[in-house]
Amino acid sequence: MYLDNSATTQVSEEVFEEMLPYFKEEFGNPSTLYSIGRESKKALELARKRVADAINAKPEEIFFTGGGSESDNLAVKGIAFKLAKKGKHIITTEIEHPAIKETLYFLESLDFKVTYLPVYENGIIKIEDLKEAITDETILITVMHANNEIGTLQPIEEIGKIAREKGIKFHTDAVQSFGKVEVDVEKLNVDLLSLSSHKINGPKGVGALYIRKGTRVVPLIHGGGQEKGIRAGTENVPGIVGFGKACELAAAQLDEHYDKLSAIRDELIDKVLTTIPEAYLNGDAENRLPNLVNFRFKAIEGESLILLLDAKGYQASTGSACSSNKLEASPVLTALGLDPVDVHGSLRISLAPESDAFDVDAFVETIAESVQRLRQMSPLWNQELDYDNIMCKKHSDTCKRC
Amino acid sequence: MYLDNSATTQVSEEVFEEMLPYFKEEFGNPSTLYSIGRESKKALELARKRVADAINAKPEEIFFTGGGSESDNLAVKGIAFKLAKKGKHIITTEIEHPAIKETLYFLESLDFKVTYLPVYENGIIKIEDLKEAITDETILITVMHANNEIGTLQPIEEIGKIAREKGIKFHTDAVQSFGKVEVDVEKLNVDLLSLSSHKINGPKGVGALYIRKGTRVVPLIHGGGQEKGIRAGTENVPGIVGFGKACELAAAQLDEHYDKLSAIRDELIDKVLTTIPEAYLNGDAENRLPNLVNFRFKAIEGESLILLLDAKGYQASTGSACSSNKLEASPVLTALGLDPVDVHGSLRISLAPESDAFDVDAFVETIAESVQRLRQMSPLWNQELDYDNIMCKKHSDTCKRC
Repeated sequence: MYLDNSATTQVSEEVFEEMLPYFKEEFGNPSTLYSIGRESKKALELARKRVADAINAKPEEIFFTGGGSESDNLAVKGIAFKLAKKGKHIITTEIEHPAIKETLYFLESLDFKVTYLPVYENGIIKIEDLKEAITDETILITVMHANNEIGTLQPIEEIGKIAREKGIKFHTDAVQSFGKVEVDVEKLNVDLLSLSSHKINGPKGVGALYIRKGTRVVPLIHGGGQEKGIRAGTENVPGIVGFGKACELAAAQLDEHYDKLSAIRDELIDKVLTTIPEAYLNGDAENRLPNLVNFRFKAIEGESLILLLDAKGYQASTGSACSSNKLEASPVLTALGLDPVDVHGSLRISLAPESDAFDVDAFVETIAESVQRLRQMSPLWNQELDYDNIMCKKHSDTCKRC
Repeated sequence: MYLDNSATTQVSEEVFEEMLPYFKEEFGNPSTLYSIGRESKKALELARKRVADAINAKPEEIFFTGGGSESDNLAVKGIAFKLAKKGKHIITTEIEHPAIKETLYFLESLDFKVTYLPVYENGIIKIEDLKEAITDETILITVMHANNEIGTLQPIEEIGKIAREKGIKFHTDAVQSFGKVEVDVEKLNVDLLSLSSHKINGPKGVGALYIRKGTRVVPLIHGGGQEKGIRAGTENVPGIVGFGKACELAAAQLDEHYDKLSAIRDELIDKVLTTIPEAYLNGDAENRLPNLVNFRFKAIEGESLILLLDAKGYQASTGSACSSNKLEASPVLTALGLDPVDVHGSLRISLAPESDAFDVDAFVETIAESVQRLRQMSPLWNQELDYDNIMCKKHSDTCKRC
């Protein structure tokens, strides 16, 4: 069973059907003057309306991109280059997606100053910290809606109010939250908001940036006049059409999916924490996505757990796919104040809306067996025995190891 | 008949079949550790090898992007930001694609200096001009391989030799030439080369940048470690797979297509120039793509001609699709030294390799009729009568108008 829907999802049948004609029959370039181009242009504008409707925006505020990372780069660099003369200070958090963090590191190399707000043990920033960080030089606040590794939700609405009062542009990366919880650009008080298609059963290689009317950005990809000059390059018509359909479906099914997923999530958290010794939930217990949980298990390597689970038919991950090939400790979990050793023992499970057939008991049993097996081989777990006086059956009937 | 293959092409059946499994069954994220992700990773690497083979590069020198415009932006900004401390001078031509030109305007706003080499009447730069433009501050030369509006080929090999002698990085935009003429990164002496998928019967929304081993660039899209940290964002696996297949097919059929297309092109040029009065070929007669011709017809509006031809079943364009929605005169044709009025009377015809059924005679007749009809309504054509003593039948039997 595929339990890594925060990494990517498969294209749904309805989305795929909608894309199909635009590969071959309706392949025209939307920027051309003749008939076949006009059909593509129409399809593009319907998709734009569907995306806009799903987040309570106007179609002219939606700009299609090549994905969530590009949207993040366009938002942050776009505002930074546009407003550099006004100020060069940006505020963000310690747990942003690499598409934001690495972009900010790049801007620091161009003499921008960045404040990284701490998130504390629950993975959430404190509004007081934000208020204190604001200076006359602050031009942008960028805080993700939901974290991609631990699923915690930030107080976007409140941040947005403060940003607006101070006249500072506010961007949120809603790649993980969109389709899982309500994303309404008016309620959230955002000026810019990033979306990705492949996280919501749309095709890979497509995303969008919402830019509030009146907010100006410098393009990231310069060139032709596509997307009103904000994003050059021939439009990926089939991809955009698919993304539009995926948005429509996600918005229509939001409440139903929320209820279903959060019930499964709560059952999963409860059973893991009560069944497996030395298991912990990462991130806030309340303010979180309905479909994503992140556990840590003392004295095991997350990578090994992923491989054991895969062999048993469950695909999960240790954290974000973007950095899972790296061996370094997750910066998100590190920012929660966890010990580096504990950070490596994490497991991210992200559910699909169509998870009706998911047998939580069987899955938790598989995790429990796998964790036990890994701990039996783990020198760290044996060390634990010494340190914490936890002994195996040879020594005591109360030994937690057995 | 679709005669605008330089704007975009339809996805071929073979390419589409190859992409198909990666939307649904094999939808894994290539960066994940488990089985389904590994299948996507394999597909990605096969595509990388196919692209590399098609341009005589190594697979590790191919970096996938969201399209040709992104590749151009990555190449030019990537080198500019990387080498800014060494120098801030860039050399290019007056007729680059907007993805290069607009990128350079952006860099000029960041205090880079750009030399725009003239192209003269034939649309080709002079090597002497290039040599004179080079200074100690020059860090990059970017000259397109084939022009997207008039199809002329630049002396890339020679430019590359000079760049290498001087230790200057050299980029070429091969979006229009790839699949039409030989593109061999070794013969061309380039350090960076842009490719696009949708111009060669691959899907839209995919491209690649060739970066010679040892050449370093700053990423355009910062974030996760995909594409060795050069281009962040979950890979568009179906798109990349399709692009790989399209490259394989284009390379295998190159010679056959070249011969077929250049024969049709020559017949078309000959018949248009001999049949239609006051018709001219834009750009060099010899050094040009086999599939693209650009004519101008005195005293007509290109847009009107496009619409008449569309009504008769021929889809062509006035110039590049990227700027065809703008009413301003083509900067490419203007750079040839043409009168602004003449620039507006242009027609670009770009053939598909599968143009066997193309009836050149019937098409030329349709153009001739359309041009004549437009001229009858044109005040400019009537003015011509006064200026050049060309009179209609009412006045003289030799009147060219009738």
